[in-house]
Amino acid sequence: MSTAALAGEGPLETVARAMAEVRALNGVLNLLSWDQETYMPPRGAAGRGEQLAAVEGAIHDRLTSPLLEESLSALEGAPGGEPDRALALRELRRDVARAVAVPGELVRAIARAQAEGHVAWTAAREEGRYSRFAPALDRLLSLRKEQAAALGPVLSRGGRGEPVEPYDALLDLSEPGMRVARLEPLFENLQGWLVPLLDRIVARPPPEDGFLKGRFEDAAQWRFTLELLELIGFDAKAGRQDRSVHPFTSGLDPGDVRVTTRIYEDRPLSAIFSTLHEGGHGLYEQGLPAEERLSVLGAAASFGLHESQSRLWENQVGRSLAFWRGALPRLSRHFPALGDVSPERFFRAVNRVERSPVRVDADEVSYNLHIVLRFELELSLFRGSLSVADLASAFDERSERLLGVRPKSDLLGVLQDIHWSYGLFGYFPTYTLGNLYAASLFAAAGRALPGLEEAIAEGRLLPLRDWLRRNVHEIGRRLTAEEIVRDAACTGLSDGDFRAYLERKYLVELA
Amino acid sequence: MSTAALAGEGPLETVARAMAEVRALNGVLNLLSWDQETYMPPRGAAGRGEQLAAVEGAIHDRLTSPLLEESLSALEGAPGGEPDRALALRELRRDVARAVAVPGELVRAIARAQAEGHVAWTAAREEGRYSRFAPALDRLLSLRKEQAAALGPVLSRGGRGEPVEPYDALLDLSEPGMRVARLEPLFENLQGWLVPLLDRIVARPPPEDGFLKGRFEDAAQWRFTLELLELIGFDAKAGRQDRSVHPFTSGLDPGDVRVTTRIYEDRPLSAIFSTLHEGGHGLYEQGLPAEERLSVLGAAASFGLHESQSRLWENQVGRSLAFWRGALPRLSRHFPALGDVSPERFFRAVNRVERSPVRVDADEVSYNLHIVLRFELELSLFRGSLSVADLASAFDERSERLLGVRPKSDLLGVLQDIHWSYGLFGYFPTYTLGNLYAASLFAAAGRALPGLEEAIAEGRLLPLRDWLRRNVHEIGRRLTAEEIVRDAACTGLSDGDFRAYLERKYLVELA
Repeated sequence: MSTAALAGEGPLETVARAMAEVRALNGVLNLLSWDQETYMPPRGAAGRGEQLAAVEGAIHDRLTSPLLEESLSALEGAPGGEPDRALALRELRRDVARAVAVPGELVRAIARAQAEGHVAWTAAREEGRYSRFAPALDRLLSLRKEQAAALGPVLSRGGRGEPVEPYDALLDLSEPGMRVARLEPLFENLQGWLVPLLDRIVARPPPEDGFLKGRFEDAAQWRFTLELLELIGFDAKAGRQDRSVHPFTSGLDPGDVRVTTRIYEDRPLSAIFSTLHEGGHGLYEQGLPAEERLSVLGAAASFGLHESQSRLWENQVGRSLAFWRGALPRLSRHFPALGDVSPERFFRAVNRVERSPVRVDADEVSYNLHIVLRFELELSLFRGSLSVADLASAFDERSERLLGVRPKSDLLGVLQDIHWSYGLFGYFPTYTLGNLYAASLFAAAGRALPGLEEAIAEGRLLPLRDWLRRNVHEIGRRLTAEEIVRDAACTGLSDGDFRAYLERKYLVELA
Repeated sequence: MSTAALAGEGPLETVARAMAEVRALNGVLNLLSWDQETYMPPRGAAGRGEQLAAVEGAIHDRLTSPLLEESLSALEGAPGGEPDRALALRELRRDVARAVAVPGELVRAIARAQAEGHVAWTAAREEGRYSRFAPALDRLLSLRKEQAAALGPVLSRGGRGEPVEPYDALLDLSEPGMRVARLEPLFENLQGWLVPLLDRIVARPPPEDGFLKGRFEDAAQWRFTLELLELIGFDAKAGRQDRSVHPFTSGLDPGDVRVTTRIYEDRPLSAIFSTLHEGGHGLYEQGLPAEERLSVLGAAASFGLHESQSRLWENQVGRSLAFWRGALPRLSRHFPALGDVSPERFFRAVNRVERSPVRVDADEVSYNLHIVLRFELELSLFRGSLSVADLASAFDERSERLLGVRPKSDLLGVLQDIHWSYGLFGYFPTYTLGNLYAASLFAAAGRALPGLEEAIAEGRLLPLRDWLRRNVHEIGRRLTAEEIVRDAACTGLSDGDFRAYLERKYLVELA
């Protein structure tokens, strides 16, 4: 019914149908993943693997069908129509080119190596020995290099003619158009001022946060996270929150966006900031252009831009004094013991900075140094200047240099993240891109929305959501992430706004 | 990756891969449906429709791919291999033949007419007027006749050379191999003894069930339903229970089977019997042959056989005196007010028989008369001896004749079931087949398992589950439903065991 031609169908209809089916099947993949982490019974795992592979296969079939190629070529050869049509054709061509470029054998070899890699990584963590994981990682690295070689000829338009290298091909998968040649100087600059800033902050006495000790009842935390979602404008009719071991967001469709959280009764900040983070991702998914639901343009622009939306709500909003002026009284209704804590004290407590070897627990000052570290190591692996065998010691050495702390074990060092267990290279940088974009977008929102800080303090967050919706969410994939940020914030990729944000907060407000 | 050939792949691997993908994609459809009825937010409906259609399209692509046809033909032309291989090829050929037989245009026209039909049916129910629905039903009927004509040449082997007619093609979709020529005399015989039996029972005073009035707390009912699932041997690691408006079962894989229930605080029997019913379906899904998970043979044999498994646990087990000897003390732990009700009184209360125009609430005596009624009407519509315009009055007239009650409105008559809103003809008979098969299988289990009644009274239900597993579930699609029942119970399709069951219960035990 789908890869075959329909009677009376022209190239435009064929292309539209293929796009709609690929979008719908991507929604199906997201439901399968969501269910796997929320409600799937334990013995469903084997079947789930086959279900995911079958849907991925169906997407690959759609993108590589000869009929689609023929129709797409015909339309490309006959320009015209609305401007969005040309953009959609460009983006679809990119997806098709990628699907065609990587041989099916390689796709399957990577899938197998990922499964083996994850098993080896899990075993290595149990034994606390990186060497148990190294051979599997070596295999993944060589397959990823093959994949990069296959994808090299079909990179997204980079925009500025930067030279390319193999790592660019993987980076381009997560952040279309981004290049090592842009990231290297940016990340070098970033660590140049972040390392001394971190030194300066951790030299001060840590904030007092004794009021966060004790038991914070699960059900009350749950109710407060739902209030937070409502507060930031997450549409409960077009989404829902559930629980999972690791919080995440899964967008099936702008009308069906699932966020998850986890609750620790002895650490109340965990669920709060994870909800604001996933809620930010969720707002992006709910705000994607409804009129492009069935088009390739209806998707998010990049992982980096996605992360900017989560970080903006988590950090720029959620870790601000203004926000807690409005939110602390709400929180205290659930936890009366917090009733005599001032917003200023709470603000200090949620902005504790420390040297830790672990990325996922890192504060917003040290966080990007964890990313710089991983980016440097991945790049060295791809360039051949570092071997997989030497990765653990290189990790520890760089951790000491960048973060001022040497991991006590491989578990807290090179084995800490799940990403490499699947050979996921080129993804870490998008976290930092997200942080930088978030700072630029929030600064721009502040210029565009007079009285934003007061509004936040009063719990009126919809103007900010709507500004992001108009300037970021509704653009979908029509532009690259950097183009979107440039249009919205009059700045391309830069660490300037982020630096100003951190310095104002940590050297002025929290001085 | 899927409909194209892989390097080095022979016909056997191609066929195996297609079967595995179709099975996995069917599991995906079941997840999409389950989620739609349990957790999907309201605004997800539009996207869900597209997701379902895209996965159905992918299944159709797999089944109609020229590569699969070529490989399947090659294997069919070169017999050999294990016996199961020949059976799998036969069943796969049936699925392929059906997918190829119905033109894509017709498939889409039916899908559209179903959507329109459901809207018209809903509106007709709101207005309480059948005439509002009739034109849409007429359209559905004529499309279903077209579908039947297309499917006629590829009917499943019927076994006995019965003559065929158009309605058989739809019947065959739900109950492979079944024919009108078998059902007509069977249903005629059935009503011949059911109508006087019903008359006799309703002439007696109804059982006393005042102890079922009052409020039965939701949370306690929920806990009891989970106990029931555990009691009958539903594996909680390979499935789960959730809530939905209409209870149903959705099997994604033998390791992942979802059942749902609904709870009314003023009607405690509803959740109990719906849980036993869906639990029976769930046991069938969990018991399907694990070694055929990726083969077409790993699926259930028919809807009728599926219904036999739900009805056996709901009625033969759940409405027996033995069962309540064991289960009532458990139930009373949740509802102490039931502590002084005897199992005999409870047994009488759960077997109340009455004349009602509504099928879904019907007791096990009158239930099949509702099915006879619908089967007769559907057959007349297909044979052209009844017009859609006259359906409502024919419904009321037959209801009076068979059930002794004339529906007070179209809402309680011809508009009561959702099935016709989708033009689902040929499905109703499987409910009665399920009731007959359940009686035959339960009688056979009683012969094979000495002391079964005592075991049930003691709450030891695993021997029965395991007997069904060995004799029904694990056979999958290797045999037809009737062949499975014949092997297990030494009887083919017959109402003998069912009649003996009802007469023993209602004329002896409950006399």
